[in-house]
Amino acid sequence: MNKNNYAIIMAGGVGSRFWPVSMNSFPKQFHDMLGTGDTLIQKTFQRLSRFIPKENIYILTNEAYNDLVLEQLPEVTQQQVVLEPAMKNTGPCILYAALKIQKENPDALMLVAPSDHWIEDEDAFSRNVLTAFDFCKENDALMTLGIEPTFPNTGYGYIEFDTETENVVKPVKQFREKPDYDTAKSFIKQGNFVWNAGIFMWSVESVLKAFEINQPTLFQLFKNGMSAYNTDTETEFINENYIKAENISVDYAIMEPSKNVYVLSAQFDWNDLGTWGSLYDKLDKDSNNNAVVNARTLVQDASGNMIRTQNDKIVVIEGLNDYIIIDKDDVLLIYPKEKEQGIKEVRNTVKDEFGENYC
Amino acid sequence: MNKNNYAIIMAGGVGSRFWPVSMNSFPKQFHDMLGTGDTLIQKTFQRLSRFIPKENIYILTNEAYNDLVLEQLPEVTQQQVVLEPAMKNTGPCILYAALKIQKENPDALMLVAPSDHWIEDEDAFSRNVLTAFDFCKENDALMTLGIEPTFPNTGYGYIEFDTETENVVKPVKQFREKPDYDTAKSFIKQGNFVWNAGIFMWSVESVLKAFEINQPTLFQLFKNGMSAYNTDTETEFINENYIKAENISVDYAIMEPSKNVYVLSAQFDWNDLGTWGSLYDKLDKDSNNNAVVNARTLVQDASGNMIRTQNDKIVVIEGLNDYIIIDKDDVLLIYPKEKEQGIKEVRNTVKDEFGENYC
Repeated sequence: MNKNNYAIIMAGGVGSRFWPVSMNSFPKQFHDMLGTGDTLIQKTFQRLSRFIPKENIYILTNEAYNDLVLEQLPEVTQQQVVLEPAMKNTGPCILYAALKIQKENPDALMLVAPSDHWIEDEDAFSRNVLTAFDFCKENDALMTLGIEPTFPNTGYGYIEFDTETENVVKPVKQFREKPDYDTAKSFIKQGNFVWNAGIFMWSVESVLKAFEINQPTLFQLFKNGMSAYNTDTETEFINENYIKAENISVDYAIMEPSKNVYVLSAQFDWNDLGTWGSLYDKLDKDSNNNAVVNARTLVQDASGNMIRTQNDKIVVIEGLNDYIIIDKDDVLLIYPKEKEQGIKEVRNTVKDEFGENYC
Repeated sequence: MNKNNYAIIMAGGVGSRFWPVSMNSFPKQFHDMLGTGDTLIQKTFQRLSRFIPKENIYILTNEAYNDLVLEQLPEVTQQQVVLEPAMKNTGPCILYAALKIQKENPDALMLVAPSDHWIEDEDAFSRNVLTAFDFCKENDALMTLGIEPTFPNTGYGYIEFDTETENVVKPVKQFREKPDYDTAKSFIKQGNFVWNAGIFMWSVESVLKAFEINQPTLFQLFKNGMSAYNTDTETEFINENYIKAENISVDYAIMEPSKNVYVLSAQFDWNDLGTWGSLYDKLDKDSNNNAVVNARTLVQDASGNMIRTQNDKIVVIEGLNDYIIIDKDDVLLIYPKEKEQGIKEVRNTVKDEFGENYC
């Protein structure tokens, strides 16, 4: 494996649309959402370690999840866990990690990968990332993997690419935030739009240059810590300065303003597991087309449901279709699948009415 | 209080339509179904002890529930708990209890009362029973309390009474099993039909005469034990002979064939708490017309539901109307209220598929 290949796994999210399973104290990426025996972050780590040296895989997460990371990824050392003292979106933490990696290896190529996505064909994923790495080694480029859209999903961002080149690596014309339905339909009709999966590849040199040009204040803030990174004084520097960073996404900070952005269309089946409905899509179904995790079910006239319990509890359902049914010791959720975007808000209401402990 | 007044509380049922709360090992009558702080059998005992000496109240139940009875009714002695070694319907156990009471007090008047019904006006109940007792003292009569029907319920038996007498105690013309809807409607239109609540009153003399005439074999079987009743040899006799008794209801054994049957129309509001739906009717409702026991709820676009958890679990429901939602540690039931009669069958299926422990 190429010792210049690095990855950072983004594992600081709270997965609020997966409430009540995903909790502040135990978010989605640390759960075995698919019922495979591995948690999502474990699956992600395994997928990356096929072509990236394990010691070059960093986990970016919240301080609160440090123990969960070390417990679930025993091959990872504390030095590989990059802790954000505050929630500042993806921009600051990616910049911070890039500087740490640059200090260790100025020739590094970096992959940024979410910790909680589902990817079917891991060989294709490896090939795609390595193709992108080759391109990043030869060019000053910020790259993303684009997912070919299968329907006009209004929950994802889209990337428009230039069709003039024959190369598999296409220059990006623009990023588009979550569109409305008609716009999404027109994107698909045009044919040169892909979903933004939040998977980025670049050399540390290119990404740091992009930050320096587009976010000079933020860049300087973290650049000031260069002598401290990967030493005993790093924590002190970060705890003092991280809080001062602007809350900004990596897309907004560098991808959108940069001219050297490229996209490679992914050749693997992908799902962001962003909602209970997308998890439902990926799970095996019973004969009534219900997706069941852990529960023992007895269903009559009930189909299309996403059913999950903590253990092998018996769930009897009659006359209920396309519902999300999630049972925990202290919370039971019964919610229409088509309204799943509302679960985030439900979670907030539960927090307000019954307290933080339930969220 | 009149020392000749006796009662037997029928507490041997399993309440299978209240699954999964009512369990073989812990049936409905031993649960606080109404969330009042008292179990149904405790409420029944309190109601009767207003006008019947506590030591004259017998509990008829299954051997398996002996400890539950003594625990929930600490004022009751073991001698007052009459144990059925086998499930033989109401006929044999009422005959057995009547003989025991006759041996203790040949002048006894007896009330037979279910352990798991709801009665609002306890004063009216006392008055009605005492009126019936007065009638039974003067006449050779088998009496029942009839409930004035409020709608054409097809789940109850009906009693047709004779309208020719001006007396509040009316001769019964016939008992009618659960009718179909049109028949039930015609009963209500006729005006001289009441619901059979399974509440009976008679002198021990009259009820034993009725058994002797109409069920001579059964009568002789239990009469043979007369010298043993209320002595140390009683258990031995019962364990040997109870199993030989015919499985027959008291209605079929003596009420239907007898000519001296009378009914008094109850002057209290009554509910047999026979199903989750009837429990729903009796519980207070939240602002969305949901009946909630124990749970803390967050409901949106959801009304008419019967929601019960074991503790103060949070239940979030959206877009669900008229469902029974019952949550326990090991079982979750989500079932349409209008199909509640099917719960008995669901319980059997669960038993077959997952074992006795869940029923």
